[in-house]
Amino acid sequence: THEVVLKFSCSDQPGIVAAVANLFALQGFNIRESSQFEDVHTHKFFMRTVLESCEGPKSIEQVKTSFEPIAQRYGMEWSLYDNQYKPRVVIAVSQWGHCLENLLDGYKRGTLPIDIVAVVSNHAVMQPLCEWYQVPFHHLPVTKDTKSEQEAAILNIFSDNNADFLVLARYMQILSNDLCEALSGKAINIHHSFLPGFKGAKPYHQAYDRGVKLIGATAHYVTSELDEGPIIEQAVERVSHANTPEELVEIGRDIEAVVLNRAVRWHAQHRVLLNETKTVVFSR
Amino acid sequence: THEVVLKFSCSDQPGIVAAVANLFALQGFNIRESSQFEDVHTHKFFMRTVLESCEGPKSIEQVKTSFEPIAQRYGMEWSLYDNQYKPRVVIAVSQWGHCLENLLDGYKRGTLPIDIVAVVSNHAVMQPLCEWYQVPFHHLPVTKDTKSEQEAAILNIFSDNNADFLVLARYMQILSNDLCEALSGKAINIHHSFLPGFKGAKPYHQAYDRGVKLIGATAHYVTSELDEGPIIEQAVERVSHANTPEELVEIGRDIEAVVLNRAVRWHAQHRVLLNETKTVVFSR
Amino acid sequence: THEVVLKFSCSDQPGIVAAVANLFALQGFNIRESSQFEDVHTHKFFMRTVLESCEGPKSIEQVKTSFEPIAQRYGMEWSLYDNQYKPRVVIAVSQWGHCLENLLDGYKRGTLPIDIVAVVSNHAVMQPLCEWYQVPFHHLPVTKDTKSEQEAAILNIFSDNNADFLVLARYMQILSNDLCEALSGKAINIHHSFLPGFKGAKPYHQAYDRGVKLIGATAHYVTSELDEGPIIEQAVERVSHANTPEELVEIGRDIEAVVLNRAVRWHAQHRVLLNETKTVVFSR
Amino acid sequence: THEVVLKFSCSDQPGIVAAVANLFALQGFNIRESSQFEDVHTHKFFMRTVLESCEGPKSIEQVKTSFEPIAQRYGMEWSLYDNQYKPRVVIAVSQWGHCLENLLDGYKRGTLPIDIVAVVSNHAVMQPLCEWYQVPFHHLPVTKDTKSEQEAAILNIFSDNNADFLVLARYMQILSNDLCEALSGKAINIHHSFLPGFKGAKPYHQAYDRGVKLIGATAHYVTSELDEGPIIEQAVERVSHANTPEELVEIGRDIEAVVLNRAVRWHAQHRVLLNETKTVVFSR
Repeated sequence: THEVVLKFSCSDQPGIVAAVANLFALQGFNIRESSQFEDVHTHKFFMRTVLESCEGPKSIEQVKTSFEPIAQRYGMEWSLYDNQYKPRVVIAVSQWGHCLENLLDGYKRGTLPIDIVAVVSNHAVMQPLCEWYQVPFHHLPVTKDTKSEQEAAILNIFSDNNADFLVLARYMQILSNDLCEALSGKAINIHHSFLPGFKGAKPYHQAYDRGVKLIGATAHYVTSELDEGPIIEQAVERVSHANTPEELVEIGRDIEAVVLNRAVRWHAQHRVLLNETKTVVFSR
Repeated sequence: THEVVLKFSCSDQPGIVAAVANLFALQGFNIRESSQFEDVHTHKFFMRTVLESCEGPKSIEQVKTSFEPIAQRYGMEWSLYDNQYKPRVVIAVSQWGHCLENLLDGYKRGTLPIDIVAVVSNHAVMQPLCEWYQVPFHHLPVTKDTKSEQEAAILNIFSDNNADFLVLARYMQILSNDLCEALSGKAINIHHSFLPGFKGAKPYHQAYDRGVKLIGATAHYVTSELDEGPIIEQAVERVSHANTPEELVEIGRDIEAVVLNRAVRWHAQHRVLLNETKTVVFSR
Repeated sequence: THEVVLKFSCSDQPGIVAAVANLFALQGFNIRESSQFEDVHTHKFFMRTVLESCEGPKSIEQVKTSFEPIAQRYGMEWSLYDNQYKPRVVIAVSQWGHCLENLLDGYKRGTLPIDIVAVVSNHAVMQPLCEWYQVPFHHLPVTKDTKSEQEAAILNIFSDNNADFLVLARYMQILSNDLCEALSGKAINIHHSFLPGFKGAKPYHQAYDRGVKLIGATAHYVTSELDEGPIIEQAVERVSHANTPEELVEIGRDIEAVVLNRAVRWHAQHRVLLNETKTVVFSR
Repeated sequence: THEVVLKFSCSDQPGIVAAVANLFALQGFNIRESSQFEDVHTHKFFMRTVLESCEGPKSIEQVKTSFEPIAQRYGMEWSLYDNQYKPRVVIAVSQWGHCLENLLDGYKRGTLPIDIVAVVSNHAVMQPLCEWYQVPFHHLPVTKDTKSEQEAAILNIFSDNNADFLVLARYMQILSNDLCEALSGKAINIHHSFLPGFKGAKPYHQAYDRGVKLIGATAHYVTSELDEGPIIEQAVERVSHANTPEELVEIGRDIEAVVLNRAVRWHAQHRVLLNETKTVVFSR
């Protein structure tokens, strides 16, 4: 690889950046991009850096090996990626296609740095769209009684495809605790409200009833606590008393797609680090 | 008066607009501005219109009298104002002056159509500022034991000044149910969060803990249910993981002032109509 | 028809609203929605109203005939539509599909009140997408020498389909003066900058060079003066020094699609009225 | 000092970050905050870092001396500040006080990290406000004939107060080329439009005439080319056809104050680096 992305977190202590910068400088890497953050309350330190080899391609395994001692010394949680590698993504969808379509479009144009390896759905309606985009579509209907089998099927598709993460693009089913844990930090959901407002079902109708003047969408990591996972990105749009719930749904669609697109992009670029119940997002 | 503002609500039924328009056309009024809204769920109709007399000034009492029969026929809740009249406002404030200052500045420049007739506060810190703006300042300290006397004093100042409405410009005290009811529809509060998220105390710290990516402010009518009154206006600002709670407070200050300013302006211009737990806001 | 939409403009004068409201009240219409605006500088009056027949369906021609005398009396520029009728739209596109896709998706779901009757393009790349959406696609390559023939072909497709308006969804060709005039008030373009900044070619690169902190998109009516037509809608998105021109293009795509979608929707709902070089937009 | 802020730019080359990080690690400094950026077109590298001494206070002069060799080796343009030091600021104002008031309020509360050492104005109207805030006010009327003397007086006040930068808080006078050059990189202006749209005089009236749907404000460094200096920050607010030019002025006031406040804060925190005609802004 010519470019690697390193991200890590550890307790803050003097000398971390120097140690990291030295190691890579000695190996002929140049820093292309770098972001740091120290949580002043927990004294945890977060860093992401993109490094370019000035001496031709390097083996990613060798780079990892050389980094290991530093990671151990500072007690880092870390990962190191080939910057050319596009994460493999499974998308779960229900009957609404706007978020899916936005992701497929970015994937097809090559501007969203992911490989969409499968789409799973409890309905068949998105099959023709996936066919047009030449992405494998798996119809996995679900009932109360078949939930665990259906989730097992999702997980199989995930593993069989060596997927890196799952995107719930308006999937409308609540994942079981088991699945949430199996995909911890690897599943991104779009919730159609400005969390923590209007959790649960029918948030646009809740927003209409409450008479808010802005509606929003929230992309977050999935955890077993519904709509409580670490938030990656949010956005809002202005509405008025004159908008019906149906119009809120329509206005919200565009925000949902945009917010999910950003969250997927940033996760795929390794810009999102978990900080307990929150995220550190090194967006540009 | 040369211009009157009429606002009303009633059950929707054919002929309302025609009846209103006819009445005023016959009296030589021209429509300068007009907004309507029908709540499709409750079939309630809302209207605000600004009328200009083409035949010189009219007595507001006479106009009211002439409107009375139509109001009765359609069962309207209505009010009619001289458009020159600036509503008389009492502002309650605690130790933070940014919202107060914004309102005083607009009042002094004449661009905010209100008369600030008194400022009341449980602290003395805003006294010099009010003196500079030549607005009477009433220092009304409050303890648990003196709450009812202190609220009575506020209400007295309100009545003695023939005030039209009260603005809680970061007042930080919870009003008693009695005061809420006495000032129903006549008290506007600014809450420093994007409601319904982060109700209650220290919303910026709640927002920090939840890790949201946007913070907001909400202006609403005061009701006895804390932070549940009809929302008049909201706005948000982008924040990041790197912002401390103190920075959220700082970023939020500007939004709070702007949102409260808009709510006060629109209320003073009779652009806000109550629709049960919601508002109809005929902003431009 | 059960619902009609009336829009008109004329010189301001007393009695207009009363005359209009009376006429329709007498014919058994109820006002569902109504918006007025008076330009205080030109004293021109603008109005849009949605009327519902309480006495069953009416012939749109009869309604028009009954309105004619009032329109004449007040010198109105006016039009009256069946609210069920979906305007017929031709979309012109080049090689970028995001705006087209957004419109096709809204059309297919039935949430965007238009009928897309044809897509024309100087490139073939969007043909499969249109086929998937079952919309006729016309490949009309263009060179300097064939511009007038190609534009004639577009105009033929427009007429043959009884189209109501043309949408330039990132068409990337400058229309001739003749075509601009032939479609005056009937052609909507999306420009990928926050006009009047960065007119002409490569606006995102211009924005990058100037170092702006927000980029935008503008939907406007096409006129023979490039990028100078009446603005219908605009929106912006935050960017930073770290964004490359390519990233600006990517960030801008989503805004372009959203802004064009709104402009098309509002035009189709007869919410946009021309006020010389500007628009009056009665959005909700 | 316990904390220093270092900012620099230089041609990109391997080893810069390692060299900087090493130097400070060896001197017992811990990195509190750090931001880097490489301009991929010019290959210029920009960095800002906040360093905390873990071994008690250090002399800023000694730190500078120790950094000198690295700065020379990499050909850096650099500066190093005591993070406790509040930059000394002169504010120029005309007859409109909203931007001034916002800055004075932040200064007085201690949340804006600047010392306002003087206010200069060609009008006397802001004198009482400055007195209330206990900031020296200098009334410096200006005519065509006295412009050079008046500007000399401003420059004298700037020097006599050891000021670090000048803020034009709606000063409404065009600075001479000489003054622009004397204060190059040290003078921040707020322009009441979304540049590059509506340069020059009366931008809100220009915006009204063009019929834009959003208005904005731009904070930028002053250069001899009017309204062309490097942009620090921008923001916009939604408006409609119904807003008069006077209302645009009123809506714009709040944006202007907020945008200028941010630019002043970021400049005072050494977060803004010049990149020829653009800026690099390491905001949080």
